[in-house]
Amino acid sequence: MNASTESVILKLGGSAITDKGANEGVVKEADLLRIAREVSGFRGKMIVVHGAGSFGHTYAKKYGLDRTFDPEGAIVTHESVKKLASRVVDALNSFGVMAIAVHPMGCTVCRNGRIESMYLDSIKLMLEKGFVPVLHGDVVMDLELGACILSGDQIVPYLAKELGITRLGLGSAEDGVLDKDGKPVPELTPANFEEFRQCIGGSGSTDVTGGMLGKVLELLELSKNSSITSHIFNAGKADNIYRFLNGESIGTRISPDKRV
Amino acid sequence: MNASTESVILKLGGSAITDKGANEGVVKEADLLRIAREVSGFRGKMIVVHGAGSFGHTYAKKYGLDRTFDPEGAIVTHESVKKLASRVVDALNSFGVMAIAVHPMGCTVCRNGRIESMYLDSIKLMLEKGFVPVLHGDVVMDLELGACILSGDQIVPYLAKELGITRLGLGSAEDGVLDKDGKPVPELTPANFEEFRQCIGGSGSTDVTGGMLGKVLELLELSKNSSITSHIFNAGKADNIYRFLNGESIGTRISPDKRV
Repeated sequence: MNASTESVILKLGGSAITDKGANEGVVKEADLLRIAREVSGFRGKMIVVHGAGSFGHTYAKKYGLDRTFDPEGAIVTHESVKKLASRVVDALNSFGVMAIAVHPMGCTVCRNGRIESMYLDSIKLMLEKGFVPVLHGDVVMDLELGACILSGDQIVPYLAKELGITRLGLGSAEDGVLDKDGKPVPELTPANFEEFRQCIGGSGSTDVTGGMLGKVLELLELSKNSSITSHIFNAGKADNIYRFLNGESIGTRISPDKRV
Repeated sequence: MNASTESVILKLGGSAITDKGANEGVVKEADLLRIAREVSGFRGKMIVVHGAGSFGHTYAKKYGLDRTFDPEGAIVTHESVKKLASRVVDALNSFGVMAIAVHPMGCTVCRNGRIESMYLDSIKLMLEKGFVPVLHGDVVMDLELGACILSGDQIVPYLAKELGITRLGLGSAEDGVLDKDGKPVPELTPANFEEFRQCIGGSGSTDVTGGMLGKVLELLELSKNSSITSHIFNAGKADNIYRFLNGESIGTRISPDKRV
């Protein structure tokens, strides 16, 4: 296996790094450290985007942030997800990754829950200078709604398109997109998606942002208009992140239709 | 005294909220809480910008960030000043201020130490929705230098110009700009500045960003091209911040030349 240095965006699902069933923010400490070590082996340019897990969804639900503008809830949820971001950045830096947290609240505005604008100048410079920007699911200001929840799953394709990064890895709690027998579908394209759609569920635990189906729909839409290829794999299994970062195709690959 | 609701930018000097002589980040807890209480009495739109104090200057000096690009130093210093920002935001929110930290690292790029661009969309929306954005001295990416130190004293006039806010308050550790007898000069304008220039010193403690003279020069430059009026006053004295926020002219007022 040759080491890859192609630029990548690595998503760490909230359930990969937190106990998503908890009633408050709980980090899966051992998993986070293992993941940080795997990430540290990569030498290319990389952006990490992590989910909010139990640091976000718990409070977002409590304050009904998926339905209503609640200033106190927005602040409490934002403060909570920043605590997780800080843990992720600290873990990465303990393995020499040079990670810097970029909190979407300060650099993103949405309209009706979709990204309207994001400030990318500092992220671009960080990549150029060898830093690893770490973004995350967050509460952000919204032109129509006051504030809204911005999921990491929306940030990943946005950054990929805007920055021209064509290799995405989504480390989740499952082995990929599973077929009706529970085995990962090797490849999903706009052409074969309907065949598997019924197997793809929402998220198992508390999740206000759409679960696996939401993820897949974002990535399929992305692949339709670009050469961007995404890999959904199990970040809970040792070495999967390392293997993805080093160029292997693991889990489910979501790619444009093959045009022969 | 009538309560004012004019939009303001309030700078909290690093020495007003931290022990600036300390070798690591130390908050002046009682002062911070008193300040937060005074701030909470204001009903208008407000941006708070705080200095980095001992949370920033100590590390900036240690890693020589005023002279050189040191990625590790940039990360350590940024993480440290974010801890102070978190303390400031928590203190403000404990008095119901609805404060949200906006870290310059993620929304600002400099060129040779001067702000080249800053993402203002989320700050504008925060103000519109009743939040109080809290910015601070930080390490940010720099197009020429890799990274640089961005002082709160540079952020304040930038935001004032870009957002059209004409009333600025700089809470420092002194009663204003002091004359040769140690008394605050009531008013400084581009016309009378040279008369007082020799009295204005740098900063007493460790400070990589220029102290009082740097502050005054930024504000004079600003007043030359706008109707922006700044007040430098002692934030260490009870009620000064409250009085400034409620429309009083205290300390030294820095304003455009009077054109009769």
